[in-house]
Amino acid sequence: MALEKLSSNKVFEGELVKYKFNSEVLGGTDARFNLFIPANAAQGKVPVLVYLSGLTCTEDNARASRFCSLTRPLVAAGIAGETDDWQFGVGAGFYVDATNPTYSKHYNMLTHVTVELPKVITDAGLPIDFSRQSIFGHSMGGHGALTIYLNSIRNGTKQYRSCSAFAPICNPVNCPWGQRAFSGYLAGGVEEAKEKYDATELLSKFDGKTPVHILVDYGTGDNFYKQKQLLPENLLKAARDVGYDEMQVRVRSQEGYDHSYYFMSTFGADHIHFHANFLKA
Amino acid sequence: MALEKLSSNKVFEGELVKYKFNSEVLGGTDARFNLFIPANAAQGKVPVLVYLSGLTCTEDNARASRFCSLTRPLVAAGIAGETDDWQFGVGAGFYVDATNPTYSKHYNMLTHVTVELPKVITDAGLPIDFSRQSIFGHSMGGHGALTIYLNSIRNGTKQYRSCSAFAPICNPVNCPWGQRAFSGYLAGGVEEAKEKYDATELLSKFDGKTPVHILVDYGTGDNFYKQKQLLPENLLKAARDVGYDEMQVRVRSQEGYDHSYYFMSTFGADHIHFHANFLKA
Repeated sequence: MALEKLSSNKVFEGELVKYKFNSEVLGGTDARFNLFIPANAAQGKVPVLVYLSGLTCTEDNARASRFCSLTRPLVAAGIAGETDDWQFGVGAGFYVDATNPTYSKHYNMLTHVTVELPKVITDAGLPIDFSRQSIFGHSMGGHGALTIYLNSIRNGTKQYRSCSAFAPICNPVNCPWGQRAFSGYLAGGVEEAKEKYDATELLSKFDGKTPVHILVDYGTGDNFYKQKQLLPENLLKAARDVGYDEMQVRVRSQEGYDHSYYFMSTFGADHIHFHANFLKA
Repeated sequence: MALEKLSSNKVFEGELVKYKFNSEVLGGTDARFNLFIPANAAQGKVPVLVYLSGLTCTEDNARASRFCSLTRPLVAAGIAGETDDWQFGVGAGFYVDATNPTYSKHYNMLTHVTVELPKVITDAGLPIDFSRQSIFGHSMGGHGALTIYLNSIRNGTKQYRSCSAFAPICNPVNCPWGQRAFSGYLAGGVEEAKEKYDATELLSKFDGKTPVHILVDYGTGDNFYKQKQLLPENLLKAARDVGYDEMQVRVRSQEGYDHSYYFMSTFGADHIHFHANFLKA
């Protein structure tokens, strides 16, 4: 699992490096990710903010932050049909560990993000402190960030200090994108997803007392929001129903913004500051 | 010359709009540009910061600023050979008005940027105050910004309040990119360019007393810098030789940065603040 450096660019006094490695949990395919290493990493290990991309996006959509940040690799595993549809297969792993045997050798993005990437980066001696980790993402990556974060609290690992998302798929068991993905990747289909891969379902089982730190932004001009792929109201309702207030779960409706990177770039600094509160603590 | 709106995205509380129009000075070809209209344009006309792109780049490389900003259109005029080489022809107009008859009908980016775009935008009733205008650009666009700015002072129009550039081609008559472009577009070739299209040559004829406001950044890790396509030292020497100090012409060498948008994104906020000083005055 040796890391191969593919490119490096200096940015904001630090270094943005693209790495490649042969991923075990993705069935021996090549995985790529970008890692931003800030200048102060020379004085000691730095915290990390993990960024997960949306449908059709790659590791190159990550924005450099002042923290170390990681991004999702794009996997092509050679399974029939996986590149036919932008909503499923390559570039659309939905951050699950597949249980359908057709996909279970290659589609294990959950373990890839939560276990394998921290391990290969630590083993390579890079100056990242994975005990100070937060996570965020866009769209499908926002779904990934929310579910990974909530599961890490539920299972007691508390691997991430905070979570945020831009236009996330908040209740995928109730939208076409999620239903399509889960019925493909999971042997138990949508029902299986309710246990583990749906932020609204997960949050509705919380007790309202366990500390959570979640920030979500979505735009009212977002066509996927209008088509009910995102369903942020369902997440918000689940949070309030179990007793979380604005300080624990903040879901912001942003007038007129769409699903694009223009939206993300507008609120990106806000999200970075949000995570900084917890990563610097 | 009616403007057609191709797309619109909300960003930073304002609107980034892509427009298309049939350009007279570009020989009747379709020209495209992006215009960022900040939210405060609802209260009255706003200043404009013109952004000129580099070789092979399009209007979509522009970054939204808090001002109104304009970008260079990409021209395809149907001239033989113009798409064969990324260094010449489509996407490589070098911001000249061509005098070689092969190109002079279509390649008039100078007039397009300085005269035609302000006119079509004003005629369309958009809330832009062209009496408060500054200009910047990247690489070939930095060359465009510098030469357009210096010419506007020399010819007395003082159309722009300030000028900045990222990794500009500072002395094109002495580098391969410039020599190739000028010997193609200009009937008088490189000699003709010395009079009008070379920032170092232009600045060397200034008296050192006329106020100028120029900021240039380049990276020492930039391969085009190493290949002597940019020659920022020549511009700096010309400025100091005629008596301009750091307050008038600042040329900053940035350790380890390359020619990419990572470099621009790092110093972009600096440039915006630099121009804001003059545009708000």
